[in-house]
Amino acid sequence: MCQLLGMNCNVPTDICFSFEGFQLRGGVTDHHKDGWGIAFFEGRGCRVFLDAKATIESPVAELVRRYPIHSKNVIAHIRKATQGRVALENCHPFKRELWGGYWVFAHNGNLEDFQPAFSGSLRPVGDTDSECAFCCLLDRLRLAFPNGSPAIADLSAALRTVTAEIAGHGLFNFLLSNGEWMFAHCSDRLHYLTRQSPFREAHLIDQDMTVDFSAVTRPDDKVTVIASVPLTDNETWTAMHPGELLLFREGEAVFGI
Amino acid sequence: MCQLLGMNCNVPTDICFSFEGFQLRGGVTDHHKDGWGIAFFEGRGCRVFLDAKATIESPVAELVRRYPIHSKNVIAHIRKATQGRVALENCHPFKRELWGGYWVFAHNGNLEDFQPAFSGSLRPVGDTDSECAFCCLLDRLRLAFPNGSPAIADLSAALRTVTAEIAGHGLFNFLLSNGEWMFAHCSDRLHYLTRQSPFREAHLIDQDMTVDFSAVTRPDDKVTVIASVPLTDNETWTAMHPGELLLFREGEAVFGI
Repeated sequence: MCQLLGMNCNVPTDICFSFEGFQLRGGVTDHHKDGWGIAFFEGRGCRVFLDAKATIESPVAELVRRYPIHSKNVIAHIRKATQGRVALENCHPFKRELWGGYWVFAHNGNLEDFQPAFSGSLRPVGDTDSECAFCCLLDRLRLAFPNGSPAIADLSAALRTVTAEIAGHGLFNFLLSNGEWMFAHCSDRLHYLTRQSPFREAHLIDQDMTVDFSAVTRPDDKVTVIASVPLTDNETWTAMHPGELLLFREGEAVFGI
Repeated sequence: MCQLLGMNCNVPTDICFSFEGFQLRGGVTDHHKDGWGIAFFEGRGCRVFLDAKATIESPVAELVRRYPIHSKNVIAHIRKATQGRVALENCHPFKRELWGGYWVFAHNGNLEDFQPAFSGSLRPVGDTDSECAFCCLLDRLRLAFPNGSPAIADLSAALRTVTAEIAGHGLFNFLLSNGEWMFAHCSDRLHYLTRQSPFREAHLIDQDMTVDFSAVTRPDDKVTVIASVPLTDNETWTAMHPGELLLFREGEAVFGI
């Protein structure tokens, strides 16, 4: 099984601290060695760094660790292959365009007997259940709202419907973002944490590293980090419930949508 | 105006030597400082490195120079903005999916009064004439062959038709690849060179650097490099003719298609 990492903020923020711990799970503190990837939204643009190597052996991961890209929405993934061979086309996150904007998706879980029909506007390139699910999500959203992006309540309702349908095929923990919203769905394992004023120190689980966020933030900053397994051992992470789909925007969960 | 660099090979090859000279045009030997990008096909997968910084200031360009990614099809671009602001979403190459495979595109030129209608299966994200042209190309190909990738002769014929139409709006030098074929269209400025046995030394124009390809190749290797302006000063580059669309596969031009 894979691991997910997401970040949603109200100001462009670098993910270096969280990625520092997360990337060690790609071969040191855990065994997810079948590739990895990370996507950064920057305005309307989005860049995805992928490597079919383990994070700990990847020169691209080294770049990401050292080059603090500032983004309001980041999705990262380290892969332990279940379906689909170890290959670049099977590395998450996947990125596609919908309604004139980029969408990014990463999945942790395993879907069985899942062969959805596609309308013809997009198809998977690789052979994972994950990319197939992402294409299915976007295809269904495009069909439901052919004229463009709907209001968030309508988008959320449509997403809940197709998510529940796909989750009937197995474990479907995922992160999905369009650069404005971050959607997080939990089947069995997803945690989140919102950092805001007053900021404190945080200490990584996967290595002995501490950051004092009060020294590197402004009072209005809000940053939510979402991870399969908590990344720090001195902060209170919230475990999501099975079947829960949360929406994050500007650094915090938005309920009631 | 921008500069293009493409490589098409019969074995996965690194582009480090060509990129070494090319990247200097992003601010040292030429003035293309408004972003850059490079796409590498690896099997069915494709990764794109983008940066809105000039190549000479970009940590990502530094990674690409030092990390020899082996690929049979590479497209790179350095940008001097004509249409569209300096932003990540406007950096080439652009990547989209068609018929279950990735397609990559980069453009040098300027298109005026170009507002094509789209069928609804894809739209531009940024605001360049270039991404608009790429979406137009793919949209028209998808509409012409809704059931999947056609034979190369049919694909080529359809591509020639829509290319000629778009080129009516201005300068339209482009590189387009689906990981198997590399298509190169010249409006006013595009050169290519095929390296094959017997291999010799090549010397860059943009800096005093020489590689002896006989020492780093096998006898059957074939590598075609395509560039807006020749990259070496001791090899014979072929200037493409205005209006010419060439197809490259397995490292060499394929004529008569």
